[in-house]
Amino acid sequence: MTSIGHIINGEAVSGGSRRQAIYNPATGSSSYEVELADKATVELAIEAAQAAFPGWRNTPPLKRARVMYKFKALLEAHAEEICSLITAEHGKVLNDALGELQRGIENVEYATAAPELLKGEHSKNAGPAIDSWSEFQPLGVVAAITPFNFPAMVPLWMWPMAVVCGNTVVLKPSERDPSSVKRIVELAQEAGLPKGVLNLVNGDKEAVDTLLTDPRIQAVSFVGSTPIAEYVYSEGTRHGKRVQALGGAKNHAIVMPDADMDNVISSLIGAAYGSCGERCMAISVAVAVGDACADQLVQGLKVAMANIKTGAGTDNNNDMGPLITGAHRNKVKGYVDAGVAAGAELVVDGRGLLVSGHENGYFLGPCLFDKVSTDMSIYTDEIFGPVLCVVRAKSMQEAMDIINAHEYGNGTCIFTRDGEAARYFSDHIQVGMVGINIPLPVPMAFHSFGGWKRSLFGDLSAYGPDAVRFYTRRKTITQRWPAGGLRESAQFSFPS
Amino acid sequence: MTSIGHIINGEAVSGGSRRQAIYNPATGSSSYEVELADKATVELAIEAAQAAFPGWRNTPPLKRARVMYKFKALLEAHAEEICSLITAEHGKVLNDALGELQRGIENVEYATAAPELLKGEHSKNAGPAIDSWSEFQPLGVVAAITPFNFPAMVPLWMWPMAVVCGNTVVLKPSERDPSSVKRIVELAQEAGLPKGVLNLVNGDKEAVDTLLTDPRIQAVSFVGSTPIAEYVYSEGTRHGKRVQALGGAKNHAIVMPDADMDNVISSLIGAAYGSCGERCMAISVAVAVGDACADQLVQGLKVAMANIKTGAGTDNNNDMGPLITGAHRNKVKGYVDAGVAAGAELVVDGRGLLVSGHENGYFLGPCLFDKVSTDMSIYTDEIFGPVLCVVRAKSMQEAMDIINAHEYGNGTCIFTRDGEAARYFSDHIQVGMVGINIPLPVPMAFHSFGGWKRSLFGDLSAYGPDAVRFYTRRKTITQRWPAGGLRESAQFSFPS
Amino acid sequence: MTSIGHIINGEAVSGGSRRQAIYNPATGSSSYEVELADKATVELAIEAAQAAFPGWRNTPPLKRARVMYKFKALLEAHAEEICSLITAEHGKVLNDALGELQRGIENVEYATAAPELLKGEHSKNAGPAIDSWSEFQPLGVVAAITPFNFPAMVPLWMWPMAVVCGNTVVLKPSERDPSSVKRIVELAQEAGLPKGVLNLVNGDKEAVDTLLTDPRIQAVSFVGSTPIAEYVYSEGTRHGKRVQALGGAKNHAIVMPDADMDNVISSLIGAAYGSCGERCMAISVAVAVGDACADQLVQGLKVAMANIKTGAGTDNNNDMGPLITGAHRNKVKGYVDAGVAAGAELVVDGRGLLVSGHENGYFLGPCLFDKVSTDMSIYTDEIFGPVLCVVRAKSMQEAMDIINAHEYGNGTCIFTRDGEAARYFSDHIQVGMVGINIPLPVPMAFHSFGGWKRSLFGDLSAYGPDAVRFYTRRKTITQRWPAGGLRESAQFSFPS
Amino acid sequence: MTSIGHIINGEAVSGGSRRQAIYNPATGSSSYEVELADKATVELAIEAAQAAFPGWRNTPPLKRARVMYKFKALLEAHAEEICSLITAEHGKVLNDALGELQRGIENVEYATAAPELLKGEHSKNAGPAIDSWSEFQPLGVVAAITPFNFPAMVPLWMWPMAVVCGNTVVLKPSERDPSSVKRIVELAQEAGLPKGVLNLVNGDKEAVDTLLTDPRIQAVSFVGSTPIAEYVYSEGTRHGKRVQALGGAKNHAIVMPDADMDNVISSLIGAAYGSCGERCMAISVAVAVGDACADQLVQGLKVAMANIKTGAGTDNNNDMGPLITGAHRNKVKGYVDAGVAAGAELVVDGRGLLVSGHENGYFLGPCLFDKVSTDMSIYTDEIFGPVLCVVRAKSMQEAMDIINAHEYGNGTCIFTRDGEAARYFSDHIQVGMVGINIPLPVPMAFHSFGGWKRSLFGDLSAYGPDAVRFYTRRKTITQRWPAGGLRESAQFSFPS
Repeated sequence: MTSIGHIINGEAVSGGSRRQAIYNPATGSSSYEVELADKATVELAIEAAQAAFPGWRNTPPLKRARVMYKFKALLEAHAEEICSLITAEHGKVLNDALGELQRGIENVEYATAAPELLKGEHSKNAGPAIDSWSEFQPLGVVAAITPFNFPAMVPLWMWPMAVVCGNTVVLKPSERDPSSVKRIVELAQEAGLPKGVLNLVNGDKEAVDTLLTDPRIQAVSFVGSTPIAEYVYSEGTRHGKRVQALGGAKNHAIVMPDADMDNVISSLIGAAYGSCGERCMAISVAVAVGDACADQLVQGLKVAMANIKTGAGTDNNNDMGPLITGAHRNKVKGYVDAGVAAGAELVVDGRGLLVSGHENGYFLGPCLFDKVSTDMSIYTDEIFGPVLCVVRAKSMQEAMDIINAHEYGNGTCIFTRDGEAARYFSDHIQVGMVGINIPLPVPMAFHSFGGWKRSLFGDLSAYGPDAVRFYTRRKTITQRWPAGGLRESAQFSFPS
Repeated sequence: MTSIGHIINGEAVSGGSRRQAIYNPATGSSSYEVELADKATVELAIEAAQAAFPGWRNTPPLKRARVMYKFKALLEAHAEEICSLITAEHGKVLNDALGELQRGIENVEYATAAPELLKGEHSKNAGPAIDSWSEFQPLGVVAAITPFNFPAMVPLWMWPMAVVCGNTVVLKPSERDPSSVKRIVELAQEAGLPKGVLNLVNGDKEAVDTLLTDPRIQAVSFVGSTPIAEYVYSEGTRHGKRVQALGGAKNHAIVMPDADMDNVISSLIGAAYGSCGERCMAISVAVAVGDACADQLVQGLKVAMANIKTGAGTDNNNDMGPLITGAHRNKVKGYVDAGVAAGAELVVDGRGLLVSGHENGYFLGPCLFDKVSTDMSIYTDEIFGPVLCVVRAKSMQEAMDIINAHEYGNGTCIFTRDGEAARYFSDHIQVGMVGINIPLPVPMAFHSFGGWKRSLFGDLSAYGPDAVRFYTRRKTITQRWPAGGLRESAQFSFPS
Repeated sequence: MTSIGHIINGEAVSGGSRRQAIYNPATGSSSYEVELADKATVELAIEAAQAAFPGWRNTPPLKRARVMYKFKALLEAHAEEICSLITAEHGKVLNDALGELQRGIENVEYATAAPELLKGEHSKNAGPAIDSWSEFQPLGVVAAITPFNFPAMVPLWMWPMAVVCGNTVVLKPSERDPSSVKRIVELAQEAGLPKGVLNLVNGDKEAVDTLLTDPRIQAVSFVGSTPIAEYVYSEGTRHGKRVQALGGAKNHAIVMPDADMDNVISSLIGAAYGSCGERCMAISVAVAVGDACADQLVQGLKVAMANIKTGAGTDNNNDMGPLITGAHRNKVKGYVDAGVAAGAELVVDGRGLLVSGHENGYFLGPCLFDKVSTDMSIYTDEIFGPVLCVVRAKSMQEAMDIINAHEYGNGTCIFTRDGEAARYFSDHIQVGMVGINIPLPVPMAFHSFGGWKRSLFGDLSAYGPDAVRFYTRRKTITQRWPAGGLRESAQFSFPS
Repeated sequence: MTSIGHIINGEAVSGGSRRQAIYNPATGSSSYEVELADKATVELAIEAAQAAFPGWRNTPPLKRARVMYKFKALLEAHAEEICSLITAEHGKVLNDALGELQRGIENVEYATAAPELLKGEHSKNAGPAIDSWSEFQPLGVVAAITPFNFPAMVPLWMWPMAVVCGNTVVLKPSERDPSSVKRIVELAQEAGLPKGVLNLVNGDKEAVDTLLTDPRIQAVSFVGSTPIAEYVYSEGTRHGKRVQALGGAKNHAIVMPDADMDNVISSLIGAAYGSCGERCMAISVAVAVGDACADQLVQGLKVAMANIKTGAGTDNNNDMGPLITGAHRNKVKGYVDAGVAAGAELVVDGRGLLVSGHENGYFLGPCLFDKVSTDMSIYTDEIFGPVLCVVRAKSMQEAMDIINAHEYGNGTCIFTRDGEAARYFSDHIQVGMVGINIPLPVPMAFHSFGGWKRSLFGDLSAYGPDAVRFYTRRKTITQRWPAGGLRESAQFSFPS
């Protein structure tokens, strides 16, 4: 059986004796494995990154950025190939994979602006004949640890900004769907990234722990579930590293009585069930204000959900593919069972779905609950599946209170036509990414991505302007030149 | 015996049954005590800050800034009074206290720019008819924990920026010299800071631990020694807080053969012995490049040191006051003894100093070591006293290697006339604050203060632009308004 | 009869043989004159400014800013005195004068941020071992020429930013109401502005033409009517100066059917009749969308206008004072006559107003026209008096087309609750300053003030961030230090 | 004979009956002509640009930027072809043409950062519940008028930034070497620039005057000689346009006694004679401080100049190609004659140069004058040819006084190792672009290009950050939403 290895110092290498099978979630079958790096292999990668650092750090930002221009072109040229790999291992529909890749490319585009982004602040005459300025110097070797649900995009949130800032990187992607990211790393090398600047190790906890403890790693960027994010943050900071660790979410949409209901329904269908709900920005709760609004919403969703097609991601006619593993599918099913048991009204039940020809795939149909209360596990927990809960509120304030009481604060949105409602909501909601009539308010690459509360551990958000600050260390230089030197003496040196 | 209490919700309050005597280090005598807050008292302060937050957060930044304009004027009007309090409890010379206060006022000045500093980034047409912008919202209640050596300045590094960003604050200053900061907090109230926005608790570890663990505290700014900084950072982050913890230093100056030696000597005298070396930016090591340069440097320092006057800080004719406590004076003396024992050449010995009329004061004369090697404790440790070590290096590169090998990376400087030497040094030295012919390269208030390596735990530096980012949470709003509403319909509503 | 002279090089000086009487517009009487500077007097002022430039330019921005902190405090302390002078010469109600002064002080506040605002951009490694940065250096001597309608505020828009950027200034205010600005200039001297940094000359066209042609003047900021603005711009630029010349306005408010009509009416009353309409941001046209909306609006305005009190500005119970001169009052009356003649419906007629006890004052009551068409002179011309025109439109698009067809593009606003209408309006309206439910959308001091089309001649707006760019010249420095010098040689100089 | 026409609305079009022959300056022969657009043709281009504006303005900046990514790739792919066209018509050596193109591409790279560069400033709570933000909206149709000496680069300084800011463009390049820029415009179309966004008209004064007077043109960017720049500026501003007009230069290098003389000589050879001196940033005066320094400099230059190879630009072994026309060659020769007549010492005389096989080419060998005084025409005038003047100064201050007295202030540099000399020079020299040991301190694309004094007419510099401000109009929006609407009412609408 073939196995997927690592890329260290520009070379494909094997490392680690443990292997894990890679499954196609649409078929449940597996034909190859991924190698799980042991500590020694990870250390090789760190060593390569460390060795590449001095040269790369001294390379002007403009030259570092130019690699990204070529890399962008290569990603575009190989988009179809990359998306096939995503779909084969993650299961999402090809068009959705293309959307993911496009969002990743946008981060590469932002990274091309490195010469602009790395400018420091210069104060002429900070004091009398004293100048002072700031430089944002790279940290050294940084680690990126990324999740299965966006195998191409999340790594592209991290390492392009890290490398254009002058760092070198060890990337440990998810061991569930390692092929697309590996292909992308190969393209980065092809674009001209010097050896050792970007290293890829596949692995699991052993690899993660090595990265979290090795003193040569200066910083860690992580995206995953909240418990692991919290572990990564505390372990990493305890070992003297800068860490940003993005965790879970339970994203609510408020539906106001004045909203354009057709727009709401089509938006929520996409935001709740796209990529099978396996998105940290998926909407998993809709809070309808007023029973009339709720009734209209639930009825509209029910009708629209009848048209959702679930099947293999290789067919772009499908709207939803399988979940990532059989175990996860069963866990999601369990949540639906629990919701029913807890008394929520299961308006649409996707549990019985059979996808003909893909009987062993990890499929689950879209589910819709109405009259969900905030003590049910379907409400409190991040399900990460195609389950949308409708909560009914009597007022906008009550709807906001519900959201502000949840432990997560990643994304949220409101549907309304009313300027004042939108402004009050965006001002007072305790959530980091807010949409006004935008169901998935993922910030553009030129802004930054970050939730509040237990959705993000760390001071700085991912990608965008915050990434520049995260991947650099401020140095402030204050300069005065002593008088009485060459300039004054020169005028006496050559008397007429 | 009178005691100094706390300021909570705009009121002077007593709290905690434990007391600690406050000494005048120039006389060794004590006539009053400070109250040490217990947990309940600290929680009262947190509660007051929490209650004040919603109103303060909604106050426009311009109005928040205006309090700082008045506060600056009050600080200037009361400078003499504040400096007397500093000198009486810390011991530093009045003029030096005035310098400290001035630097603190500069941070208040920077805080007046809040409306400019808090601007977010607005992207028109981030997508088709979609706008997106960032807001930097306050965190809530933040804590500031500050050291004895700059009782007025370091608190002013922190809370003015915290409050103009919309936060409310609990400040726990050093329990050794609490009077100047208390007076300053009173002036802030007088300037118009609403009740509860800034609360002062005096205390020790019990107070610190309460601040580090209470879930209502969102962030902690700390300045102190490295072991405590590390503790504050790990405890604070473990409890879900944003933390910046500034620790110790061992700041080196490189003296190049082409330097203006008169300038070097007068600069080093001030930088090494000013405030008795009790500054985190004091120069405690001079690395001379070449023996000729070293000989000239040591000889020049020796001559200049004969003129340093040590005595009570109330007399501005003195250059140096006492150390903070008798215990600390003895510890510093112990380092000098250890340096002699380790074989360093003690060129000037300040151990025998007697200050007539102040025989019980905690005085120690300035000490100069030559031929110090990097394994001696006088080199490795932060002494925080009037001890300057000269290390001899054969080349500039060797001098830089010495600096880069030290565990601390707070400040450093080079003395040279040569543009290339200065640029190479500032580029490659692993230190956060770099001076070119500037012995104490403390960044201006409009830049940020932060060391590298074990001199700073956290992602963001203190005061200046980084403080804005530290004391705020990024929120990104993405907005689209549905068409088909009022605008289009209006044209059909009123047919002619 | 006493006369008001000039302030040159920190001294009160007389200059020019011509005099012009200053009238109190509420009484029509005059008890003193203003001196009109001749060319020689203006040149003295330029010379003083030129002489003060080198020293001021080299003063660190922080020190320049500190003068502004003191100046702000002095303005606040003398607010009552200054406002009395404004009211006595301009006629506006005292409270309105206070509002004007407050807006001026906000520009002084912004100027205190000079150290932040003057930061250049620093690019480390712009090329290999090459650094590059920008400095924003002052221009030299700049002129400020300001109008009668905001005698205190508009000068404060200009010279504080000019001086904190390092320039020296010759200020020529309106010769109609010179006393408040003169007092303000005296306070600036008292705040510590060095002699010659700010010079005041009173005068008329002779003074203006001297400033526009003297080669030592580097830049001119002007606010006035469009014909003069255009003259100042073309004359100034023809003589090699940088010029920003702000001209006239005809500001429209769109009233949408969904607007909160009570809010609309109270907003429009203030925006149309405040300061007797003698504001470049006054609303002089309301465009109502739909006849129902228009009827409601006109009726509401009529009712509300019955309560407007017109009288001497010294009585804060009055809402409106007199116009600036008798000639101007008659000109405004003439416009009202012309509107009636052209067929507009004069709903409220203020022409017959008599203010008892002030029979010689230049009063005119508030006037309201309905059914105004865009070819009438009351619509096309800037009246600068208490005349509000209602234009009726069938749709929002028609309302916007009307606005976009006008030659001016200073300010505008829309009243609506609808997010989409607001966004479409602000995006597509050809006007520089846009209000959403804000009748007078004067940008805050930390933004910039500038109209579009024939309301502003020049590239950069007044005050705020644009003022920094206007009052400075960009200098870009690119630096490389030759290797092979001290640094490398030093390591060979001292062999072991 | 074939002729080169225009590109209007995406189509190659003919227009104008007048023709001008295009010569190969290395051979003096001509085989084709360029069409000179008449007024009607230019108006067609303006009309096309006007028509394309609304759609392009509404295209999100990110999408506009993406055209630039593709365009950059196409320029790189066609570099050889473009450079052949430059060399064939301008004469410069191919490698030099490649350098020019590379610099142009850097501006395209900067333009890809449009989403970052166009961000406005957002003030939450500018007032109570009032938000305010700035948008930088495009101007409309802008014109770019460019010179012969950088036929590819200077247009790329202008239109890419103009179009990513949302404007549409009419470009009129030099009629002497129109082929490379035309090919580049074709590639921009191929990259996806919509029809009409970028239009190219070849022409002369008739075309220029049409652009300067047509009311649809909102702004003009110009590079050329100072008399024409002044004309363009005054005509354009008189017609209500925003104008930046870059003119001539006389760039001085100061050579200090401590400079690395080998570096100075090789730097000056390139900076003075590269591209035959036909660069607005060429060094045409070297000011040596002290006779010893001057003697060493002149001797070194003389030796080095013996190795300069002059010949056809198609041979990369050559260092210098021909001048642009025979008339210009003769004019330059005339300056050399005048210098000799005026008493300057002609150390190297290039007037007799014959290039074998290219006897009809417009060649002139490199010339070096020593002991030039500031009243000679070779000093005062911009020669735009391979003539370097050495002026001798007794002190650095005298050298700087000489530079500051010249009417131009484009670029300058100093050669020294001394930090203080460099800092004093860059601070006090009245020149916009300053090099420290950098002979041609052309700012990088992420900074801006602009001289001082009579080298630039206008407020804002070319390309870089200033270009964003030049090609956009600031709009400030202030927004408040009336309370009492949906949000509050909603809570009462649906009682339980």
